[in-house]
Amino acid sequence: MGKGLRLLPSLAFTLTHSHSGNCLPRGSAVGFRSISSTSTTTKMSAEHYKFGPYKIEPKEVFYSSELSYAMVNLRPVVPAHVLVCPKREVKRFADLTVDETSDLWFMAQKIGSRLEGYHQATSLTFTIQDGPQAGQTVPHVHIHILPRKSGDFENNDEIYDAIDVKEKELKQKLDLDKERKDRSIEEMAQEAEAYRSLFF
Amino acid sequence: MGKGLRLLPSLAFTLTHSHSGNCLPRGSAVGFRSISSTSTTTKMSAEHYKFGPYKIEPKEVFYSSELSYAMVNLRPVVPAHVLVCPKREVKRFADLTVDETSDLWFMAQKIGSRLEGYHQATSLTFTIQDGPQAGQTVPHVHIHILPRKSGDFENNDEIYDAIDVKEKELKQKLDLDKERKDRSIEEMAQEAEAYRSLFF
Repeated sequence: MGKGLRLLPSLAFTLTHSHSGNCLPRGSAVGFRSISSTSTTTKMSAEHYKFGPYKIEPKEVFYSSELSYAMVNLRPVVPAHVLVCPKREVKRFADLTVDETSDLWFMAQKIGSRLEGYHQATSLTFTIQDGPQAGQTVPHVHIHILPRKSGDFENNDEIYDAIDVKEKELKQKLDLDKERKDRSIEEMAQEAEAYRSLFF
Repeated sequence: MGKGLRLLPSLAFTLTHSHSGNCLPRGSAVGFRSISSTSTTTKMSAEHYKFGPYKIEPKEVFYSSELSYAMVNLRPVVPAHVLVCPKREVKRFADLTVDETSDLWFMAQKIGSRLEGYHQATSLTFTIQDGPQAGQTVPHVHIHILPRKSGDFENNDEIYDAIDVKEKELKQKLDLDKERKDRSIEEMAQEAEAYRSLFF
């Protein structure tokens, strides 16, 4: 997974909270390093993200807005298989507010494009497994984004089997907090840091 | 696929065009039978919908807004496997405008909830195959919505294989316009009419 990553000098993270009205303009999501004179900045290191019942460390998160965040994956199915989530812990897609829905998908759209370019992919898979019978194992809305390339999976839809297996594994791994043998937090932090640079 | 459909008396279709600003409120998508005194109404029978290079008959369409429309499927993978598309012919998800993106997902959210309830399903799968390497065969953005039930597919992700096979078949069928042996247009029109009633 480290393939093709540009490693960037470490910077202090700051998270900009924009105070938008009802309608978030495209691109209102802000990178962690953006600082607006009219916004409140928060040390990222002080902020944990919720993913259902789990805490996600800020260094795994590479993009964030007031309402949504994007994180790298513990065991990605393809390079740059990432997750975009509402910050609020919401189980079902229909439980999101209008603002959350728009913000989540603007973020997914932007991240998909940047990661597709970054990994020289040519297509994207966007999927929400909305509820347990659709394969959702962590009860917190999340969009899977997978940059796709010709031949990445011989049978195109094997990728969904892989998502499902990985999702179950992710849940198990999150349950076993200390037992993260798959990818080190350092590797994930490096990847997240590389992706942050795409959003300046 | 006719299972569980309520058949409704036929009504003349009218399509309401709302003249929204930049921010479409949730539910701004309007059912075909809505008539607003401040809006322009168009006979649906006069309107064809584009799906990539293909024309979609209005009677296959059960919901529409100024920017998006939803149609029943020629060969659904599960009951109420439907497609939501932007009206504008756009190949990639990132090519949508802010308004189109919001409108498309508000519509998908609303339709998913209604069809999940209507078919006594318990979950939903939302998927965009965004580009040929992700399995897209018709070059026009479309969200697959699939109401899901326990045990509908033994292996949860078989559903994606099924989507892909059906998508290829759909393309072939649309290519062979007159050769629609799978479902009759009447059956599809009946289903679309039943679904329209969910959006009053």
